Amino acid sequence: MADRAPEPLPALAALDPAGSFAARHIGPRPDETQAMLAAVGHLTLESLVDACVPEGVRDRTPLDLPPAADEATVLRLLRERAEANEVHTSMIGLGYSGTVTPAVIQRTILENPAWYTAYTPYQPEISQGRLEALINFQTVVADLTGLPVAGASMLDEATAAAEAMTLVRRAGRAKADAVFVVDEDTLPQTLAVLRTRAEPLGIHLHVADLSAGWPTDLPGAGAFGVLLSYPGASGAVRDHRALAAAAHEAGAAVVVAADLLALTLLEAPGEWGADVACGSSQRFGVPMGYGGPHAGYLSVREGLARQLPGRLVGVSVDADGDVAYRLALQTREQHIRREKATSNICTAQVLLAVMAGAYAVYHGAEGLTAIAARVHRSAQTLAGWLRAGGVDVVHDRFFDTVHARVPGRAAEVVAAAAEQRINLRLVDADTVGVACDETTTVEILRAVAGAFGVPADGTDEGRAVLADGGADALPAELRRRTPFLTHPVFSAHRSETALLRYLRSLADKDLALDRTMIPLGSCTMKLNSAVEMAAITWPEFAQLHPFAPAEQARGYRQLIDELCTALAEVTGYAAVSVQPNAGSQGEFAGLLAIRGYHRSRGEAHRDVCLIPSSAHGTNAASAVMAGMRVVVVACDEAGNVDVADLHAKVDQHAERLAAIMITYPSTHGVFEADIQEICGAVHDAGGQVYVDGANLNAMVGLAKPGRFGSDVSHLNLHKTFCIPHGGGGPGVGPIGVREHLVPFLPGHPLVDTGTHGPAVSAAPWGSAGILPISWAYLRLMGPDGLLRATEHAILAANYVAARLREHYPVLYTGADGLVAHECILDIRPLTKATGITNDDIAKRLIDFGFHAPTMSFPVAGTLMVEPTESEDKGELDRFVDAMVAIRAEIEKVATGECDRTDNPLRNAPHTLAMVAGEWARPYPRETAVYPVPELRGRGYLAPVRRIDQAYGDRNLVCSCPSPEAFAEPEPAPGPAARVPDRSQGAPDDLGTAADAVPAGAQA
Amino acid sequence: MADRAPEPLPALAALDPAGSFAARHIGPRPDETQAMLAAVGHLTLESLVDACVPEGVRDRTPLDLPPAADEATVLRLLRERAEANEVHTSMIGLGYSGTVTPAVIQRTILENPAWYTAYTPYQPEISQGRLEALINFQTVVADLTGLPVAGASMLDEATAAAEAMTLVRRAGRAKADAVFVVDEDTLPQTLAVLRTRAEPLGIHLHVADLSAGWPTDLPGAGAFGVLLSYPGASGAVRDHRALAAAAHEAGAAVVVAADLLALTLLEAPGEWGADVACGSSQRFGVPMGYGGPHAGYLSVREGLARQLPGRLVGVSVDADGDVAYRLALQTREQHIRREKATSNICTAQVLLAVMAGAYAVYHGAEGLTAIAARVHRSAQTLAGWLRAGGVDVVHDRFFDTVHARVPGRAAEVVAAAAEQRINLRLVDADTVGVACDETTTVEILRAVAGAFGVPADGTDEGRAVLADGGADALPAELRRRTPFLTHPVFSAHRSETALLRYLRSLADKDLALDRTMIPLGSCTMKLNSAVEMAAITWPEFAQLHPFAPAEQARGYRQLIDELCTALAEVTGYAAVSVQPNAGSQGEFAGLLAIRGYHRSRGEAHRDVCLIPSSAHGTNAASAVMAGMRVVVVACDEAGNVDVADLHAKVDQHAERLAAIMITYPSTHGVFEADIQEICGAVHDAGGQVYVDGANLNAMVGLAKPGRFGSDVSHLNLHKTFCIPHGGGGPGVGPIGVREHLVPFLPGHPLVDTGTHGPAVSAAPWGSAGILPISWAYLRLMGPDGLLRATEHAILAANYVAARLREHYPVLYTGADGLVAHECILDIRPLTKATGITNDDIAKRLIDFGFHAPTMSFPVAGTLMVEPTESEDKGELDRFVDAMVAIRAEIEKVATGECDRTDNPLRNAPHTLAMVAGEWARPYPRETAVYPVPELRGRGYLAPVRRIDQAYGDRNLVCSCPSPEAFAEPEPAPGPAARVPDRSQGAPDDLGTAADAVPAGAQA
Repeated sequence: MADRAPEPLPALAALDPAGSFAARHIGPRPDETQAMLAAVGHLTLESLVDACVPEGVRDRTPLDLPPAADEATVLRLLRERAEANEVHTSMIGLGYSGTVTPAVIQRTILENPAWYTAYTPYQPEISQGRLEALINFQTVVADLTGLPVAGASMLDEATAAAEAMTLVRRAGRAKADAVFVVDEDTLPQTLAVLRTRAEPLGIHLHVADLSAGWPTDLPGAGAFGVLLSYPGASGAVRDHRALAAAAHEAGAAVVVAADLLALTLLEAPGEWGADVACGSSQRFGVPMGYGGPHAGYLSVREGLARQLPGRLVGVSVDADGDVAYRLALQTREQHIRREKATSNICTAQVLLAVMAGAYAVYHGAEGLTAIAARVHRSAQTLAGWLRAGGVDVVHDRFFDTVHARVPGRAAEVVAAAAEQRINLRLVDADTVGVACDETTTVEILRAVAGAFGVPADGTDEGRAVLADGGADALPAELRRRTPFLTHPVFSAHRSETALLRYLRSLADKDLALDRTMIPLGSCTMKLNSAVEMAAITWPEFAQLHPFAPAEQARGYRQLIDELCTALAEVTGYAAVSVQPNAGSQGEFAGLLAIRGYHRSRGEAHRDVCLIPSSAHGTNAASAVMAGMRVVVVACDEAGNVDVADLHAKVDQHAERLAAIMITYPSTHGVFEADIQEICGAVHDAGGQVYVDGANLNAMVGLAKPGRFGSDVSHLNLHKTFCIPHGGGGPGVGPIGVREHLVPFLPGHPLVDTGTHGPAVSAAPWGSAGILPISWAYLRLMGPDGLLRATEHAILAANYVAARLREHYPVLYTGADGLVAHECILDIRPLTKATGITNDDIAKRLIDFGFHAPTMSFPVAGTLMVEPTESEDKGELDRFVDAMVAIRAEIEKVATGECDRTDNPLRNAPHTLAMVAGEWARPYPRETAVYPVPELRGRGYLAPVRRIDQAYGDRNLVCSCPSPEAFAEPEPAPGPAARVPDRSQGAPDDLGTAADAVPAGAQA
Repeated sequence: MADRAPEPLPALAALDPAGSFAARHIGPRPDETQAMLAAVGHLTLESLVDACVPEGVRDRTPLDLPPAADEATVLRLLRERAEANEVHTSMIGLGYSGTVTPAVIQRTILENPAWYTAYTPYQPEISQGRLEALINFQTVVADLTGLPVAGASMLDEATAAAEAMTLVRRAGRAKADAVFVVDEDTLPQTLAVLRTRAEPLGIHLHVADLSAGWPTDLPGAGAFGVLLSYPGASGAVRDHRALAAAAHEAGAAVVVAADLLALTLLEAPGEWGADVACGSSQRFGVPMGYGGPHAGYLSVREGLARQLPGRLVGVSVDADGDVAYRLALQTREQHIRREKATSNICTAQVLLAVMAGAYAVYHGAEGLTAIAARVHRSAQTLAGWLRAGGVDVVHDRFFDTVHARVPGRAAEVVAAAAEQRINLRLVDADTVGVACDETTTVEILRAVAGAFGVPADGTDEGRAVLADGGADALPAELRRRTPFLTHPVFSAHRSETALLRYLRSLADKDLALDRTMIPLGSCTMKLNSAVEMAAITWPEFAQLHPFAPAEQARGYRQLIDELCTALAEVTGYAAVSVQPNAGSQGEFAGLLAIRGYHRSRGEAHRDVCLIPSSAHGTNAASAVMAGMRVVVVACDEAGNVDVADLHAKVDQHAERLAAIMITYPSTHGVFEADIQEICGAVHDAGGQVYVDGANLNAMVGLAKPGRFGSDVSHLNLHKTFCIPHGGGGPGVGPIGVREHLVPFLPGHPLVDTGTHGPAVSAAPWGSAGILPISWAYLRLMGPDGLLRATEHAILAANYVAARLREHYPVLYTGADGLVAHECILDIRPLTKATGITNDDIAKRLIDFGFHAPTMSFPVAGTLMVEPTESEDKGELDRFVDAMVAIRAEIEKVATGECDRTDNPLRNAPHTLAMVAGEWARPYPRETAVYPVPELRGRGYLAPVRRIDQAYGDRNLVCSCPSPEAFAEPEPAPGPAARVPDRSQGAPDDLGTAADAVPAGAQA
């Protein structure tokens, strides 16, 4: 090592760490950036970007955002906002409960990148851990609701109820009227979202007090369904059995919104007539987070599985016949059904469903029952004290919520409780609601009694109420008799050590961003930094009820305002709403704003939505949900919108043109030069422009959709703004709108959000609890950092394209042969020549330790790669090298050197069991697991072989398979040798084989 | 599933979750406990314990501790204590600096059980990740200090300096006088610990101002060494080159206490004459934590490697000749050298060394240099402002610390700064010290200037100081010219994504408690629960300087008081000191208390320490350090102290008897019945009794050493009280003493700890930052939970012993054939018959996914198993089944069915590379990696084959090996085929082969 002469120290200002984070977020070092630029034929990032981005859309004004701040400063700023929140004991209820997140679950799941950076489990071989965790969740829901098939989570309780409504509508009698009956004792936010979803579809909501029986004033053909709550929003637990029978008699399906914790004590809805159950799993250990994210749930009776919206995990077998999990029945989903879809749900709440499932695994049936018993005893004790103190308790039968009648004094009681940092619910001037939960203590109950002015256990009578359990306040005839959580997984992990190891073993089966690049086109799997994640588990952010008084949420309100302002600046819009809690929700909310705008101008007839053929499947599904007719616009050979066809379609539908939905840069990964012409044509015809923000990662700091012609966009905070994908959710899908659409942004029935459009989510600010992540990202990066990130995202895609071009054709480049932030590799010629498919390549990449790119979107038979700005050149090169090595393997098949069916590609992924067992393949074991020598000492092998998708759909099992299913396999010739035990699952309700499903759709 | 009739709900009081944690900490469920009891022949835990624990030591009074509280309550109580601390900006310096822990390092290492629950890497095949992390740390220290061999961490800077002193003493000229020269510009706590360590060894400290040159008033034979500080405690950076030359001239070795961050700008001590360097790596991203834990460091010139105390990671090769890491030169260590050891250091600060190493990996040489430049520019800017404002700055040459002369005003300036929540150092009435660090901002500097009453950049001159870097205040002749951190690992992981993946890849190579039981006798690898770990990273606990004013640390003081009170109650002592920051330190502190006691009574001649032959090796080493002579007491055939020999030795040494050190229950895992007789005999002769608390896990709630005859004990909070082992530290080794020894508990030169014995650690309360862990454990468990834990620990050991007895002889049981909380399996007969050793069994257990038990302690050729209370019956059974399966494999060797050398035991552990490669073994591949079918789909395989210990000791390389060393191996006949590149490491300084080292000594 040669000595070097010391250099003079820089001045203090030159050593400011403020901008240091961007260099951690962005993968390449300066010398790597230069090398990558050289490979794509540019000298500077500016030159590359100038060549990529059409001048017409380019915005060269620097973003007006706060300057970058370092990690420590951002933590301090977040701490200031946290401290501006006040965490009171929440007894508001209404679907949100205090809960204890076991520390082991918080640390091992919610704070663990192995869980939170994972992608949606479309590649099941590297997702067995989270698929098992989700099947645990499904089993919890199925067992507790008594309905055999439960999905892998919904966005929240309100949207789950709305999905249930449309589910029973499409599954029901075609001749029923479009009437959906809703009991009036329903959560107000659920009712609001039902109204939002019903109206564009022409469904009439008939809201009535059903305690008197089935309504007699329905239209002739009757209703197609009914929603009952169990318990009701008022806390009352009613015996709905006769009502359910009457509904069935009248041909209506029965949907029950049920509290999972209450169901440990109350008989399962599936046992007394429910066809569908829905609700929230929040109180299973998931913090309230000022409204979300939490996992909603939906379960259905036999016969309805194929109608279930969203993701469903099922059991199948791998190439050895071993039990393996994967997403079932994907042909149902919107990314395939497009405008024929009846739900646009896509992102789920996987991370939260995993937590709720783990909570049930940890507590088991006895533990959950004991918690429910304590919650109920708390409510019953309070009711006893109130009655003893002369306060009228409204309902005799309740689970956790007591309504107390205090004529004229309700506000006073609520205020007295607030003095003691307890939030009660002001139901009306005469009524106070008190909801108990897992965190309720006797001290809290005493304080509540004090707020009512009753002596609690200060009297003999009050002491007797506390000491003596006595009769409970649950209807005896509804006490649960059906066993639940009897599967061994719910009793095997009761010590913290056992749970910790179980969770680690699951995480170890999966590949997430903490082990590999996830080069998913359109999904933007960038760094989710630890500092961005830090604040979400702070109690001041985690433990606020969404309906807490505004003065207790000043920190949240400030943070949300700042975030919305920043997102508006980034996108060029006038205002942003963060209520939509997924990209699909954002699409829907954005289209509703357009719908509302047209109606406000007397143009309710405008209902045509133009959608290019290359669009995300959700776009079409969202348009249908918003009451629009989808008209597809063709794309040309270069992958761009066919402008001639666009003009033709605009002309054809000018009168009824509502909107165009277009993704920019396009789903083909190109900055289309004609975007402004397209926007202009639609505007000229009176339509509105919706730019899908899925690809905003290529635009931040370079172009603003609100400035180049768009009226509304949703952004995916879980793509561009660093909220982790969580294995398939949570997501956040805010919408930005131009000034004229601001009045139509989502409002909320209980909380003033400042806007008054239809509510699309249960909570006023959607998944508020994770907004600190995106807020932190924006503050850490600052305007310069954001711009540099975008430039590097474009550079990385072009670098991969440049290096792979000679090995695989790159489809759809712009004028200079450049792509935007992702590139499409065409595998079809190779498939034609060799039989090797993009699926084979995806699976072979697992042997190299990589997650696959997006498959067959937007073009069947292709792979789409989005490397993002966070991958350094080393990782990009490893990926490219792997793809080149795979190309060489394909060549061997082409030349006949390798067998066409028995080769490393078709047999991928390879497992330890394969190489440790008999080996009769025409290539050596080392080729299987060490395709490149760098993998010696590797840490990951797929735990299962390639999974048989069709088998699982033909033999649908969606809850935990029995342990016998995992017994050591007998030597058997092929898959399907071992049929999983179906005793606990639902039989195949339609009996038809599912189509092959393209893995790798969009989140 | 049959319906069950609902049961009445329990009353509210019966549903109190307060005691719920104990059931999570303790592994077995009630039905498992019953089954385990049946296997050991008892009906109840009480009956088992009555049979195990001699009535004489038994204490049946329930522990007087606060009742158990649930997780949420304990977090609230911790939060209250946290909020009673005040976090001021610390500019006190004196070896503790503010630092920014990168969030990715905090989350991925400090908050990750894969790192913090790991054991000391005595089993190198399952420890390659942390060994690599430690070799990174060693490389950082070696590079920065310019000395080629650095150890894997010391307990703190002060003890590192003391170890350096004794190192140069034993390595130096025998004829030198026992004089060690110390420059007076040394940290006060370092000086105090040097005094503590020097006195019992008869070393005279000669403290002098060396700025004038080498002292002329030394005794005739001269000093054996000198300690210089670089920079000094005053902040002054002096050119010690002439002094070092003079010292060498005089035959004295040069020890330099150096600031690692300063060394990025200042020439390495090894370049200008240092033989040894020592210091702290705290400011490399490790929070101050009110004093610790942090990793101290020690590095030495060529020729001194074998004198280095503590653990040293080195490079070796595995059975395939692949590069692999392991602990080097273990024959140096106290657990082998016993009374011949010259250091008792055992536990290191692995977790913190891993963090500091990762910080260097993340920042690299340029990043560290930039941080150092900023720190220096901050100090220089402040000095400029002070001078411009007329304040005299004491030193012209400094790095980060400015001493300012403000005659008579120092207290006033310090108070003015405190008003702004900034702590300065009150050096004396006329002098204020201000230390800058990575967190210092210009705003803070302005506030400090304000406290001095100078205008900062409020004047033209002040603005010029800030704006213009100008000349620095470092001696130009000492500016660093030697490159450092040139190894690629220090530039390959600069993005957060890259570092995250690197850390994950390291963690994945290792087995920790989050994947397997670690059944280590004497090491008590119990649950380290997530809730116990939660508070240590809260800023209110993490960011306090150890010398912060007492009124800013009220929460810490309260927590420490409560912890000490609880530990005193548990052990039956009058008082407890938490200053010792490892068990070995506790031993030393306890023996010093005994020494002080004897001296206070005029019995300074008492210097004999009796130690049973079965004792931990540290006991003897500690006794020697405390100036005692070790006399070994024999053990009988049952493993107990030979009482006759004891009496003989007591009689023989009665006059000079100082103490006995005895472990209870014994290191043989038995409650010796004679313990009271032994204590009585020693007391009768005027000696004191030291009961080693290593096995306290078998006694909590059952017996109290302070009540059955002991005068002093150290406890290992990292064994019994849930501080995680951290891969080999941090530990905490408090001592409890009876009333008469209280005056001799450790004090501190700068902070009033309430006790006034000699300081043993740098910080007043040692590793205060992790005390919340043990505090939380005690509050979570409560008296009942602690008792139940002890009972279950005893049950688990007896269950394993009962199930394994028919397969392996269990050594050393008590009267009823029972063991205490661990059991010893005798492998020697099998070894004799088959050649299969305990090492082979340990390595084969890796193939089953288990960590090995303790090997060859306390008896060579045995395995000692301590299952702890945290393992459930399922895991215990899996372990027993593995041991039974291994026994069957040994039997096949015995019968000749298996080859004696080429068999699964001798070849273990098996790697993926083995089974994927050529296979000519006489057993199938599946036997290698699937010894039991349950391992299909397994998540762990050892990344390397069995490691050649001797090779690495013969070819000593202790810093990062060059990348070429990892090139794909050529096919080669055996180990040592590929010699690691030695260009960056130290050559073997003694040139002798190391003895074979027993793996698995004690932490």
